[in-house]
Amino acid sequence: MSPSFYLNAIGTVRKTDEKTWIDIFDEYGDALLGLDGFSHVYVLYWFHQNDSPQKRKTLQVHPRKDPANPLTGVFATHSPRRPNLIALTVCRIESIAGNIIHIEEIDAYDGSPVIDIKCYIPGAVRDADVQLPDWV
Amino acid sequence: MSPSFYLNAIGTVRKTDEKTWIDIFDEYGDALLGLDGFSHVYVLYWFHQNDSPQKRKTLQVHPRKDPANPLTGVFATHSPRRPNLIALTVCRIESIAGNIIHIEEIDAYDGSPVIDIKCYIPGAVRDADVQLPDWV
Repeated sequence: MSPSFYLNAIGTVRKTDEKTWIDIFDEYGDALLGLDGFSHVYVLYWFHQNDSPQKRKTLQVHPRKDPANPLTGVFATHSPRRPNLIALTVCRIESIAGNIIHIEEIDAYDGSPVIDIKCYIPGAVRDADVQLPDWV
Repeated sequence: MSPSFYLNAIGTVRKTDEKTWIDIFDEYGDALLGLDGFSHVYVLYWFHQNDSPQKRKTLQVHPRKDPANPLTGVFATHSPRRPNLIALTVCRIESIAGNIIHIEEIDAYDGSPVIDIKCYIPGAVRDADVQLPDWV
């Protein structure tokens, strides 16, 4: 029996034609102190549109929904179908005003629940050391 | 009322003096197909030792537990005290054998529950575009 954990959304992705931002819920506003010193953040959000027991059982996909790409395990992709529906992306911060983080763009839907924000610090891996499969 | 979600551990971090690996539970083994084409992975694990209601209420810390660093919101850090106890790190893959991912090292404990694995693809952000605060 694998252990289970719970998450509470800490904010919401918002998008209009003109702008994109993250509304952090008031109770978590104090956790933004100092974020304005960073240019980029990791945004972790929840693939809420795939949160069904059936979709969470998907273990293999054709990456980027392209049947020409080889069938691949979801842990070797960033597919929105996966056992735990965590999305990970890096966003450029435009400005922070109160509990609102204005960002350049994000590959999420308007209304996607945000589950964590972390500062982005480069340099963990040198590009020259990275190997990738052909489909990437 | 913010929405809540559940996670199931998909594996466990294992460490001995000699080696470090991730045991993926049998039911998720198929999700590893093709991961051996990558040199690095994002490993998302759970800060299980901090999973108490009190620690999850921590919103500000002195980064790296150094009181000389300015009090900072946890969303501007990778602190293990945060509302949702998600840890994010990049690991180099040494080899994959069955459901075991042998990795070079990881900043987790032996026994840390793993909640997601994603392929690491560089190049989302150019280092020259990144700004950081002084404490980093």
